[in-house]
Amino acid sequence: MATLLSLSLSLSLLLLFNGCLAHHQQQQFQSQNECQINRLNTIEPNTRIPSEAGTTEWWNPNTQQLSCAGVSVMRHNVEPNGLVLPSFTNAPQLVYIVQGRGIQGTVMPGCADTFQESTQSHGKFRDQHQKIRRFRQGDVIALPAGVVHWSYNDGNERLVTVNLLHTANSANQLDSNPRRFHLAGNPEEEQRRLRRFAQQQFQGSRSEREEVEQEEEEGEEDSRSRREQKSSSCSNLLCAFESEFLAQAFNVDTNIIRKLQEVRGHKGTIIRVRDRLDVVSPPRTEEEEREERQQEESRREHRRSGRDNGLEETFCAMRIKENIADPERADIFNPQAGRISTLNRFNLPILNALGLSAEMGVLRSRAGTVPQWCVNAHKILYMLRGNARIQVVNHNGDTVFDDNVEQGQLLTVPQNFAFMKRAGSEGAEWVSFFTNSEATNTPMAGRVSAIRALPEEVVAASYQISREDARKVKFNNQDTFFFTSSRAEA
Amino acid sequence: MATLLSLSLSLSLLLLFNGCLAHHQQQQFQSQNECQINRLNTIEPNTRIPSEAGTTEWWNPNTQQLSCAGVSVMRHNVEPNGLVLPSFTNAPQLVYIVQGRGIQGTVMPGCADTFQESTQSHGKFRDQHQKIRRFRQGDVIALPAGVVHWSYNDGNERLVTVNLLHTANSANQLDSNPRRFHLAGNPEEEQRRLRRFAQQQFQGSRSEREEVEQEEEEGEEDSRSRREQKSSSCSNLLCAFESEFLAQAFNVDTNIIRKLQEVRGHKGTIIRVRDRLDVVSPPRTEEEEREERQQEESRREHRRSGRDNGLEETFCAMRIKENIADPERADIFNPQAGRISTLNRFNLPILNALGLSAEMGVLRSRAGTVPQWCVNAHKILYMLRGNARIQVVNHNGDTVFDDNVEQGQLLTVPQNFAFMKRAGSEGAEWVSFFTNSEATNTPMAGRVSAIRALPEEVVAASYQISREDARKVKFNNQDTFFFTSSRAEA
Amino acid sequence: MATLLSLSLSLSLLLLFNGCLAHHQQQQFQSQNECQINRLNTIEPNTRIPSEAGTTEWWNPNTQQLSCAGVSVMRHNVEPNGLVLPSFTNAPQLVYIVQGRGIQGTVMPGCADTFQESTQSHGKFRDQHQKIRRFRQGDVIALPAGVVHWSYNDGNERLVTVNLLHTANSANQLDSNPRRFHLAGNPEEEQRRLRRFAQQQFQGSRSEREEVEQEEEEGEEDSRSRREQKSSSCSNLLCAFESEFLAQAFNVDTNIIRKLQEVRGHKGTIIRVRDRLDVVSPPRTEEEEREERQQEESRREHRRSGRDNGLEETFCAMRIKENIADPERADIFNPQAGRISTLNRFNLPILNALGLSAEMGVLRSRAGTVPQWCVNAHKILYMLRGNARIQVVNHNGDTVFDDNVEQGQLLTVPQNFAFMKRAGSEGAEWVSFFTNSEATNTPMAGRVSAIRALPEEVVAASYQISREDARKVKFNNQDTFFFTSSRAEA
Repeated sequence: MATLLSLSLSLSLLLLFNGCLAHHQQQQFQSQNECQINRLNTIEPNTRIPSEAGTTEWWNPNTQQLSCAGVSVMRHNVEPNGLVLPSFTNAPQLVYIVQGRGIQGTVMPGCADTFQESTQSHGKFRDQHQKIRRFRQGDVIALPAGVVHWSYNDGNERLVTVNLLHTANSANQLDSNPRRFHLAGNPEEEQRRLRRFAQQQFQGSRSEREEVEQEEEEGEEDSRSRREQKSSSCSNLLCAFESEFLAQAFNVDTNIIRKLQEVRGHKGTIIRVRDRLDVVSPPRTEEEEREERQQEESRREHRRSGRDNGLEETFCAMRIKENIADPERADIFNPQAGRISTLNRFNLPILNALGLSAEMGVLRSRAGTVPQWCVNAHKILYMLRGNARIQVVNHNGDTVFDDNVEQGQLLTVPQNFAFMKRAGSEGAEWVSFFTNSEATNTPMAGRVSAIRALPEEVVAASYQISREDARKVKFNNQDTFFFTSSRAEA
Repeated sequence: MATLLSLSLSLSLLLLFNGCLAHHQQQQFQSQNECQINRLNTIEPNTRIPSEAGTTEWWNPNTQQLSCAGVSVMRHNVEPNGLVLPSFTNAPQLVYIVQGRGIQGTVMPGCADTFQESTQSHGKFRDQHQKIRRFRQGDVIALPAGVVHWSYNDGNERLVTVNLLHTANSANQLDSNPRRFHLAGNPEEEQRRLRRFAQQQFQGSRSEREEVEQEEEEGEEDSRSRREQKSSSCSNLLCAFESEFLAQAFNVDTNIIRKLQEVRGHKGTIIRVRDRLDVVSPPRTEEEEREERQQEESRREHRRSGRDNGLEETFCAMRIKENIADPERADIFNPQAGRISTLNRFNLPILNALGLSAEMGVLRSRAGTVPQWCVNAHKILYMLRGNARIQVVNHNGDTVFDDNVEQGQLLTVPQNFAFMKRAGSEGAEWVSFFTNSEATNTPMAGRVSAIRALPEEVVAASYQISREDARKVKFNNQDTFFFTSSRAEA
Repeated sequence: MATLLSLSLSLSLLLLFNGCLAHHQQQQFQSQNECQINRLNTIEPNTRIPSEAGTTEWWNPNTQQLSCAGVSVMRHNVEPNGLVLPSFTNAPQLVYIVQGRGIQGTVMPGCADTFQESTQSHGKFRDQHQKIRRFRQGDVIALPAGVVHWSYNDGNERLVTVNLLHTANSANQLDSNPRRFHLAGNPEEEQRRLRRFAQQQFQGSRSEREEVEQEEEEGEEDSRSRREQKSSSCSNLLCAFESEFLAQAFNVDTNIIRKLQEVRGHKGTIIRVRDRLDVVSPPRTEEEEREERQQEESRREHRRSGRDNGLEETFCAMRIKENIADPERADIFNPQAGRISTLNRFNLPILNALGLSAEMGVLRSRAGTVPQWCVNAHKILYMLRGNARIQVVNHNGDTVFDDNVEQGQLLTVPQNFAFMKRAGSEGAEWVSFFTNSEATNTPMAGRVSAIRALPEEVVAASYQISREDARKVKFNNQDTFFFTSSRAEA
């Protein structure tokens, strides 16, 4: 009986959640002139929250460009053996693994605990839990809003991730402030910083640079003094409930609940695991990954053919990550210029639900991407390696940005704003997040450009140039998205 | 010819409307910090509008919790033989029948008048009109925005309904103020109150408690004096048009129009019908209801199989209600603890279009539901009978609510906020509305919980407890959503 | 290799863009009381921007009614031989051809250049470009956000178009200000005016009438002085990029780029083409148009049958225009009263993506349309010819508009507001735009009205009239949407 109930429940939850994933609209909480951008700057995190085994850095979500794009961004820095404690956010996330590797768990509501421990080290008891996934540098992980996830650095180097939260997403029915709900640990410091961001937003103060410095100073001091005062505070979700209630809910002794609710020391939200965390997780091979993708493909094929059973029995096995750094994964490639890999709702279907997409790009020394604009999304670019000079132009024809973007810096290119970039002498590698599950760029030059789609006569008349010149403008760049400096001199 | 035209028109309207139902995004009009909730209170209606045969009570839509959830709530109290006059709202509604029974009509734009009077009591003329539905205690009725509906208490006891209006819904393209458009009657008093709410919102004043009291006092006095002054005002939609125009539009004598536009007395929007209203409405049996549901199911099956003809010929017969109070309808059931019935886009497809869902729950004495959060929706809970102690925790780990919710009180639990409840000694019965057509809850304890989905080692490391304790926390509660006090003591 | 790359790229872009079209939610940026409308006025453009071969007029987007509806409106007036230079907007557009004819190009991102010049007048080179479409009076053209379009008046009379921009559309992730991005020409004057609108909005000033006059005066003077000062400014997208960069991107000599970036004279955004623009464009016949529509229909049939290949190979050939002025195209027709043609997602599928629809209506002298409300959209009406008296009633039962709407004037009827109209002695012709891809109207009188769907007894009780009168009110108007003055007197 209980089994039946559980089955029907998990089925219903599955359906509920799955349905939820079917939505893919974006939502904006912007004030009326949030995107009247006359000047852009590269931005860096202005808040750094130390934990026992790493740090969490937040970009100020009130920065005009992030506010316009409706996103918040944070960066995790996790030491080997560090565990990012289970939490969830009020906005869907895209996580890019900048460096390192690890394992992670994402708790899909209503899905079965399909991973079973085989080791008998602790008696006859065999633990069961949901699927665990390996990840490595270059992976993008997609996390729905409200869904618990944790991760663990089981490698030998630091793990660095950049996390984009799309707070303007329709999946977030709360206001535009980023919120992280922690199931464990002591997130007090982070909560304090996020509260401050929310207050800033309320006051509408946008003198970013000033705040940044002030924040840094005050922040450090403030946090130090607080740490001394409140040595054993606890502010995760479990702590706030009455112990007795929880004892009933978990059907355990109140002593155990007290242990759950007691948080020792200032360990923050990334803790060091004493012995290595030894959980079941199948080894990841390229082979398997490819197989997974093929299955996904055939499932979609199946759905498309109209024989979908409505239960989406495959939901719990949905792919949530893909590596976009592998050179062989490139969607656009030019050996002289570089490559671009895109990740969107067509190759990672969960993005359909999240309303987000991403690209990873590599430019060789002095090569560039042609001027273009994104038709249907904001673009949030994070420079992974090297640097590039970027120009951004708004609807008034003003150059709102013309500078180098260096490693570790972030730049938002608002929807429809035109931009082009050229790598410096060391080349450039970047990841871009888009606020649409199928971001579309229109290049202005090259093979598939808007200019080439115009009749030669229209080009000539529009720019008041000769037919010959119009022809050159249309056809001289035979490339698609790239240009190389060598060619221009030719 | 006219028939053909009418057919093509109604077909086109049908299609139009049907398409409209295919949308299911939510929309938010929140100011930037609308959901920065540090403190929740139970709320009760603060405005009471008397009518000839009943009353209408509105909760203040400017209350922070309702404003964050993007909803307005009202309660109808209809005497036997009372008719709630035809009206429509700018937001989709879910109506829960708290008590009593009756009949209602919902005018689907473009659908045929499929009910025919058989009685020949008034000459040879046979009236025709759209489908009429019976409803009874425990029914949820789903009403799209902009669609006319009326209802009539044909029972012997008072009819009590709680109506949730989702003003933040994408179907509402007006601003976030709740609006009710009346086709008949004298809604002046209600209009005055709603105008005041809108003004309050504009002034941004949110000192709720103060307003509540002030409103009560001033309101009563004000309305009394107004009632004396304007004894025959008329402010429904028909009154405002020029009589001559209407005479042409209805092709009747101007005298008849004048009668339509004349509203006698202070009857408000719920009037007493002199003789019983004697309209055609088939008797409702459980049997028929079940049949209806099966048809719906098979229609969906049909659609799913890709043989949908695109005309959705069944739209006009779409089910818009379901009873969720029947114990046998329960989706989650535990004889010791209680039961929960859920209503969502899978068992009432019109909810797909409305972006709303509901649950009805019963807890036995001292039993409770485990701590959980709603992944993708706000939850608006109305206590039907008994009471329960509820705790709500926000992202900062603050307990924003810890109190009893008594019969007739409302409490909003914002999206992602964690909550648990335990019934008092008399047990508890509630209905909850959700701002998503497939609201998903993640329990923190029990069979399908987030904690159980985590590997034992992660639980142990996260809470710094032993593996044995972690195992107990994961597995001791074998139940799904419930706990019972007896067990905890065991 | 390059071909393959290009193919895969264009395929991927195609998919991306196509997916983008699948979204159809609306988005609102309204402040909290934007639609508390107590008074409506007809509005006319308050800003007139002269160009070499025509003018562009903008309605003030801060007008309460446009702001409530989330739209901006402009009107182009193009002389024979005038070319509206390539541009795109941050919002989807519906364009109605009020007068004249021409050709236009819409650059679908990623689609192939399928039109090939056959003339060999300029050497052996044969130009290729994307599809070009003919348009004529009565056409509606649907333009997605962010997509380049240009048009050319190849007729002998002035070309007049009214363009509706739905800035509140979810496709626009920028704020609610209308933005036009120009690929060529000197849009400086327009940019200055739009900036001023944005500032007004920011200041929240809404004293429209005042502004209008002030704007006119100041505007003229200001623009004159500016024109004299900055004689060769350039503020289109291409001008702002560095010449050297562009030379690399287009792989042409920097001299050519300088010509592109140099804008001579004050020609604005509509220029005169010296010789006639002689581009390939197949002649348009009624026959072909009908064929196109049938193909579209069969394609949809194909999709519906579940055999869609997911690539939507027909996307690049998607129909984006339809003529709704042809009398034979009418959806609702009454020889005594007039006709109405509707255009929605069912007969022009791209509207599904745009979330917009339209109707064209003709009323004979003194005939009218019955009182009705739009269930799910705002209605923006532009009077094409003649005039009509319109009454609009809000939720409070207040007549917020009761006046004549004359040729060239605009009036917004907010969602759910009731309205009726009667043509003057010369009759009336109008086009209405709706902020929903399947706008649905509920008439209050006539064959398919809300009143007729109510049981006679409910009508009698609601209005406290006799059963006989109720019957007349329900059944006397046998028409659907129209009434004629003659009849009322009968």
